[in-house]
Amino acid sequence: MSFDPATLTYTEAGLIPAIAQDAATGEVLMMAWMNAASIARTLETGRVTYWSRSRQSFWVKGESSGHVQELVDFRIDCDRDCLLVVVNQTGPACHTNRRSCFYTAVRDGAEVELMKPME
Amino acid sequence: MSFDPATLTYTEAGLIPAIAQDAATGEVLMMAWMNAASIARTLETGRVTYWSRSRQSFWVKGESSGHVQELVDFRIDCDRDCLLVVVNQTGPACHTNRRSCFYTAVRDGAEVELMKPME
Repeated sequence: MSFDPATLTYTEAGLIPAIAQDAATGEVLMMAWMNAASIARTLETGRVTYWSRSRQSFWVKGESSGHVQELVDFRIDCDRDCLLVVVNQTGPACHTNRRSCFYTAVRDGAEVELMKPME
Repeated sequence: MSFDPATLTYTEAGLIPAIAQDAATGEVLMMAWMNAASIARTLETGRVTYWSRSRQSFWVKGESSGHVQELVDFRIDCDRDCLLVVVNQTGPACHTNRRSCFYTAVRDGAEVELMKPME
């Protein structure tokens, strides 16, 4: 079945959440948003491209930082309202310079920092 | 630092996306939504509890199907607007009876089914 981004379910703002997972380690790196055009660009270029809600523009991940995400696999969930992009991540995925954005855990009622920024 | 669900960032509807990841395999299983009360219940009970947008009620994952998610670790992202719950998943996470909701891939422009429903 040929894939058409228009067949996905988007929010009223035309967005769909995209989870990025490290292809090598399985680590969940981040979650950001795509729109139909950024999905098409991601698939065409092999370079993961989100939609920046704050800037209202394409966000080619790593374009300024060099911390790019090379697309390895593009997946859709059962409800067609969430995406999973499996990626080769260069450097940290998080803007805090940590490998993953999910570096804070809640354990025994307290927040714990699980990883430090990369050098 | 003591954790207070009120310090997270929610949508206008009071919701926050929660990604569920298999503790044993690292597989991304599903994405659903929580509100502050379902987060508190998840942490208190150790049983992952979402907020059902369609039913507008707590959704204790697996309560009717038996396909429960036991909480292993609860993580918050850098922007405090997305959650990652690491879980022990009993049976399939997906309502289609597949292990993961992300069973469709887009490869060479076509949709490909990656896994079949579990027996």
